[in-house]
Amino acid sequence: MAVTTQEVLKLRQRTGLGMMDCKLALEETGGDVEKAIEVLRKKGLAAARKKAVRTAAEGRVHSYIHHNGKVGVLVEVDCETDFVARNEQFLAFLNDLCLHICAAAPIAVRREDVPEDLVETEKRIAREQAAGKPDNIIEKIVEGKLNKWYAERVLLEQAFVKNDEQTVQDLLADLVARTGENVVIQRFARFEVGEEMS
Amino acid sequence: MAVTTQEVLKLRQRTGLGMMDCKLALEETGGDVEKAIEVLRKKGLAAARKKAVRTAAEGRVHSYIHHNGKVGVLVEVDCETDFVARNEQFLAFLNDLCLHICAAAPIAVRREDVPEDLVETEKRIAREQAAGKPDNIIEKIVEGKLNKWYAERVLLEQAFVKNDEQTVQDLLADLVARTGENVVIQRFARFEVGEEMS
Repeated sequence: MAVTTQEVLKLRQRTGLGMMDCKLALEETGGDVEKAIEVLRKKGLAAARKKAVRTAAEGRVHSYIHHNGKVGVLVEVDCETDFVARNEQFLAFLNDLCLHICAAAPIAVRREDVPEDLVETEKRIAREQAAGKPDNIIEKIVEGKLNKWYAERVLLEQAFVKNDEQTVQDLLADLVARTGENVVIQRFARFEVGEEMS
Repeated sequence: MAVTTQEVLKLRQRTGLGMMDCKLALEETGGDVEKAIEVLRKKGLAAARKKAVRTAAEGRVHSYIHHNGKVGVLVEVDCETDFVARNEQFLAFLNDLCLHICAAAPIAVRREDVPEDLVETEKRIAREQAAGKPDNIIEKIVEGKLNKWYAERVLLEQAFVKNDEQTVQDLLADLVARTGENVVIQRFARFEVGEEMS
């Protein structure tokens, strides 16, 4: 079963894992990304991610403060060599990413990093809204609503604020293709004066 | 029982609560700060902190990126009015604070914010090191070691990197005295490329 490079890249962005792990998992699941994530999870995604993080051991920390001084963003984006970390396209990506996070206020880098209790709350709300419909329909509705919710709140799935025909994932895939290196958005922080904190 | 302003300020920095709450708690405990924190906790420190945060509803988010681009800091410091947030001393404090966090890598703003499991690990290590000594001595040793550990890792208790005769708490108390406003170090993030993450 042939798996496209685009699919492999997508899975890599979703999981932060290496190309080969992603390719094998996709081949195993016939190209189904969600199932491939399950497969990787069972194989010990956490351990594998650590390895991926080590191969992306160079990188940059970058920040942006909104002009009113009341919103700020800090990001870490890793790559494989310091040569790429000093690359103009890499630096432009860091700037765009900070601007995006400032404006779009994501809650996590990837789906897998969203706190479980937030997901459960969204599922419950979606189920209540769909109440009364047949069970198989309810599950479809819940899945659809949850996917929409992720697309609005998960950094890699959000529409890029400077060009909403691209997701942040697409923007990252572009950078990966241009630099030829594994590039990982490791983490971010976004602080806003006056926001409610948990 | 008279309580000094310095003691009230210290308790306020430790808890982020209002002057009056801190003063009353200290009076109740005869000036014992640790016991006063217990008292405040029983009265619902969380609820009270929320109130304190609301009175410090203005503020600034500030960042610092180390010259190698591999360490970055983001902080939020709140105060009561935007007038103070634009004050030169306030901005100098933000700069100093970012530099300090970059160099000293604290793990939390205050003792109360250190994750419980880290504290338990330190206590266990200290207890093992003191094994064989009489019980009452062990407790004293553990307390001493823990206090030293906090002083090295908790932002407000750390020696200020630009002047180690002051703690960050002292620096903050200076700013509070000069501006006459409740100033709260709300939160910080410090990212370093290549560091181990949990």
